[in-house]
This record gives sequence, structure tokens and C-alpha cells, in this order.
Amino acid sequence: METFVHVLDLIGTFVFAISGAVAAVNRRLDIFGTLVLSFVAGNFGGVARDLVIGAVPPAALTDGRYLLVSVLAGLITFFWYAGVDRLRSPVLLFDAAGLSLFAVAGAQKALGFGLNPVMAALLGMLTGIGGGIARDVLLAEIPQVLRSDLYAVAALTGAAVVVIGKMLDLSYGVSALAGAALCFGLRFMAIRHHWNLPVARHSPTSRAENGPEDEKTR
Amino acid sequence: METFVHVLDLIGTFVFAISGAVAAVNRRLDIFGTLVLSFVAGNFGGVARDLVIGAVPPAALTDGRYLLVSVLAGLITFFWYAGVDRLRSPVLLFDAAGLSLFAVAGAQKALGFGLNPVMAALLGMLTGIGGGIARDVLLAEIPQVLRSDLYAVAALTGAAVVVIGKMLDLSYGVSALAGAALCFGLRFMAIRHHWNLPVARHSPTSRAENGPEDEKTR
Amino acid sequence: METFVHVLDLIGTFVFAISGAVAAVNRRLDIFGTLVLSFVAGNFGGVARDLVIGAVPPAALTDGRYLLVSVLAGLITFFWYAGVDRLRSPVLLFDAAGLSLFAVAGAQKALGFGLNPVMAALLGMLTGIGGGIARDVLLAEIPQVLRSDLYAVAALTGAAVVVIGKMLDLSYGVSALAGAALCFGLRFMAIRHHWNLPVARHSPTSRAENGPEDEKTR
Repeated sequence: METFVHVLDLIGTFVFAISGAVAAVNRRLDIFGTLVLSFVAGNFGGVARDLVIGAVPPAALTDGRYLLVSVLAGLITFFWYAGVDRLRSPVLLFDAAGLSLFAVAGAQKALGFGLNPVMAALLGMLTGIGGGIARDVLLAEIPQVLRSDLYAVAALTGAAVVVIGKMLDLSYGVSALAGAALCFGLRFMAIRHHWNLPVARHSPTSRAENGPEDEKTR
Repeated sequence: METFVHVLDLIGTFVFAISGAVAAVNRRLDIFGTLVLSFVAGNFGGVARDLVIGAVPPAALTDGRYLLVSVLAGLITFFWYAGVDRLRSPVLLFDAAGLSLFAVAGAQKALGFGLNPVMAALLGMLTGIGGGIARDVLLAEIPQVLRSDLYAVAALTGAAVVVIGKMLDLSYGVSALAGAALCFGLRFMAIRHHWNLPVARHSPTSRAENGPEDEKTR
Repeated sequence: METFVHVLDLIGTFVFAISGAVAAVNRRLDIFGTLVLSFVAGNFGGVARDLVIGAVPPAALTDGRYLLVSVLAGLITFFWYAGVDRLRSPVLLFDAAGLSLFAVAGAQKALGFGLNPVMAALLGMLTGIGGGIARDVLLAEIPQVLRSDLYAVAALTGAAVVVIGKMLDLSYGVSALAGAALCFGLRFMAIRHHWNLPVARHSPTSRAENGPEDEKTR
């Protein structure tokens, strides 16, 4: 079980690190900046979760595999970027996969530290969206996560499935798979069909600068 | 006493969460992004304080009422936003009230964790301004807090009153009220009379892009 | 030895705080915002390091000298800014000195907390670049650190020298001096000769907005 959580976590780190590296290369950061963004996008969600539940030093800093996986993702993206501009859809899918894996693994870890169910689900969501938020903040952009396409909602749903599974005494393997699949499915449908959450009806519409950038940097 | 601190904290969370939600709706974030910004604006100051004094997990994550109050503020703002553009002054007042309550409660909590007086006052200030800083960073803006209208100074003054009251063995209720009133009064006067702290005399004046945005998003 | 680490740390805080204050004055923050940016640029790297290794409350908050030194740097910059626009090179050198001192002191502290060598070197780097990253994030800019001139690489090299020195049982004084000198030298040469790390070859070149800003705000 421990191993299973670990492997999910490392795969999630890898795919998120790729999303960070792609954003960095798009902004013409140098190779070191690209590696830093890989690491941040891949690990910040988990580090933030570990800091607030008091699990210090965070796993991402004591277990060298997180660093290895992040650097690998950064190097692959950096040297293999040719034509990745055409790969926008695969990157979105990578991102959705990372989100699903992190939300599930994050909720499980929070439960293991004895947090109550609601907070465990929210920390699962934080684990999933934290890396993307830190990535966008470092690039001086409003985090995509907060704006579009059921992103955080999908993460919260996946994390909630794990928490509910725990309350029903289901096997973690089962609820993790169900939660990850549901999160990925929601996100996939949102991307494909441009599902969005509503914005407030009476908000100002003249700030057009935010509109056309959607989906540009993810 | 414990209860009194708690109630102050929850009211402060509520009013700050409204300021976060207003900023989010102004930037056309969707409903989930709006709720996230409500939570961040309402709780980040306290979470940052709890992390540095070692009070983990932070109260905002273990006590469900902080979440409830933040979500409530976000939903009210989201669905009740009509005409809020005309409510700029009330929002500034809400913000000033939240600042006062947080500065006072934050200083008290830091004192309780045994920090020295100067640091307790500064942590009170951090509790007060942290949420607004995180809110503006997530919106990719230079934090308003750092630029205008005696904002941080008011928070520091309110926190200092609590710390001095403690050193003089005054009742916390008295010094908290005095500190909050002084902070609110300072901020209120600064808004009304456009009091500002000086900027450096020889700094470049050509960067006009920062000027006209003042007070836009708070 | 303890004293030596401390003095290095305080000098590093001072020079970084100046870089934060200069950036703040350039953006026309008021005096309080300038002092906050001084403190953040001078201390955030160390605070972040202390949070992840579990050394709470961080030294920067319990030892009043860090605050004192930061405020002093902020005040000097604020009132003594005339003509500092012509002092761009000295500021870059200050920044390089701070980077060197922090990378070395940060790696040493991480080793003292029992982290493994690779992570100790990376935490040394984080200590060095964390303040500059936080400074730029608060100013809503992409951190300079991630973009140019061997910045993070120089910090990592300096930190690595300390870690390797520890593994070879060298005196800390010797390896700290060697590490700091190497870091400073690398950074100095990078500034002088415009050494840069490569960017990905196939990345889009049309985003010209990032180009001409280089070196503007540091």
C-alpha cells in the first residue's frame, strides 16, 4: 500500500513537472530556471500540504526520487521541446493525470495524519492544484487553476472519493482508482466540451485582457 | 477570553474573505476561484503566522468554522455582487475592520506562544496584511498593502497596543478594543483624507503605470 | 564557529535587504512597503529554509538582529537613494555577495539539521535565491533568478563546495570561504561577460516582451 501511494506520487510529480517545464520554456527561461519550475510545479503542492500538516522536512526534500523525477521531466522537455507547441492537448492531458494522482495521494496522506474528512479532501485538492498555482505565480500570471474548466472542482471530487471510501472502509486501491478516474474524466470532459463554472453575472465585462489568454500557458 | 479571541478571528476572516471574493469577481474568476480567493484572503495571514510560530496544523485547517465563514462570504459576494462596484467604500471599511481584528488577534496569539514583544507585534501585522498580500499575489498584482494609505502601519499600531497592554498587565479585552479601534481609526482617516506615507524623493517618476491603479482592486 | 555563521548571515541579510529596498523604491512603494520588501528580500530565503527543515520559529523572527539589519538597509536605501540609478553595478555586486553568503550559510545550517548532502546543497541554493524570488513575486514580476546569468547555478556551486568540504572533513571556515568566493566569482564573471545558460532551441521567439526587461529591476 505504502509503495502504491509512493508510485502514484512519483508519476504525478513527473507529469506536473513536465507542465512546469513547458510553461518555463514557453517563457524562455534558461535551463536552470526550467528545472526550478519543473521542481516547483511537481512538488509545491505536496510541500505545502506537508508544511501545514506538520510533516517536516517534506517528503519531496528528503526522498531524492522526487528531485530525480522532476529534473528528468525538465531535461526531457527542455531538449525535446521541438514541436511541443503542437502538443498542447497532450500537455493538458498530462496535467489532468497529475492532478488526479496528486488529489488522491494528497487526501490519503492527510487522512493518515488524522485530519478530519472535510479538511483531508481539501488538502487533497491543495496537493493537486498547489504546484500549478506556484508555477503560475512564479510566471507572474493569475493561476489558470482559479479560472477555468472545473480544474479545482475535479481535484476536490477525486479527493472526496478517497475520503468517502475511507469512511466506508473500502480498500484504498479501489477508492484511489475511482477517485483518480473520476477526477481525470471530469477534467477531460471539461477540456473537450469547454465546460466552465459560472462567473458572477454582474461582474464587469470590460476587462478583456483576461479573456483571450485562456489555455495559453497550460 | 479564548472565546472572545475566537469570535474576533472569525469576524475578521469573514470580512477579509469578502475582500478576496470581490477582487476575484472583479477579475472574472469562476465561482470556485472566487471561493479559493475568499479562503486565501480570509486565512492566509493566520496560516502564515501559525506556520512560523510552529502551531501546525494551523487553526484555519482544523477548525471547520474558518472554512465555513470563508465560503459563506464568497457565496454572498458571488451571488449578491450586483452594484457592488458602487460599494467601493463599504468594501474598504470591511477591509479596515478585518485588518484591525486580525492584527489584534494575531499579536495576542503570538504572545501566547512566547514570542518577544517586538516580534509579536510584527506577527500581528503579518496576520493582518498576509491575506491581502496573498490575494494580490494570486491576482498577479503588486500588493496594495505595500503601497498605500498607512495600511501596514495601521496594523502594526493596533498589534503594538495589544503587546504594550500585555506588558502593562491590562486586560486583553481592553487592549484589544483599544488596538482595534486605533487601527481602524488610522485606516479610516487614511482612506478619507488620502493620507499616505512618503515615497523616496529621488525615485524615478516616469513609471506612471503604477499610479492610476491605486485603490482599484481593494 | 557559531558566531562566524551568524555574522555571515547578518551581512548577507543586509546586502539582500538593500536589493529589496532598491527594487521597492524603483516601483515607488512607500517607506513601509520599502521596509517590508527589505525584510522579505533579506530573510525569506532563510525563513523558507527554516520552515522546511522544521526549525520554527525561524531565526529571522526570534533573533531581533535580522530585523534590525533589514530595517537599517531599507532606511539607508530609502533616504540615500539619490543617484542610485547610476549605481546599478554596485547593486548587482551587493546582490552577488548576499547570494554567496546565504548559499554557504544555508548549506551549513541544513547539514547541521542532518539533511543528506544533495538536499543540503539545494537548500543552500534556496536560501540564496529565495529572498530574490519572493521580492520579485511581490512586485508581480517573473523572478530574475530564474532567467539569467548563472544566478542559481552560482548559488548551488557555492553551497556544493560547503557540502563537499564537510564530506572531506575540511574546516567550515575554509570551505565557506572557498564556496563563497567561487559563487561570487561565477556571478561576477556572468554579469561582466553576459554569460547565460542556454534556453531551449525550439522555444517560441515571438514573445519579445521578456527580452528587453533583463537586468532592469535587479
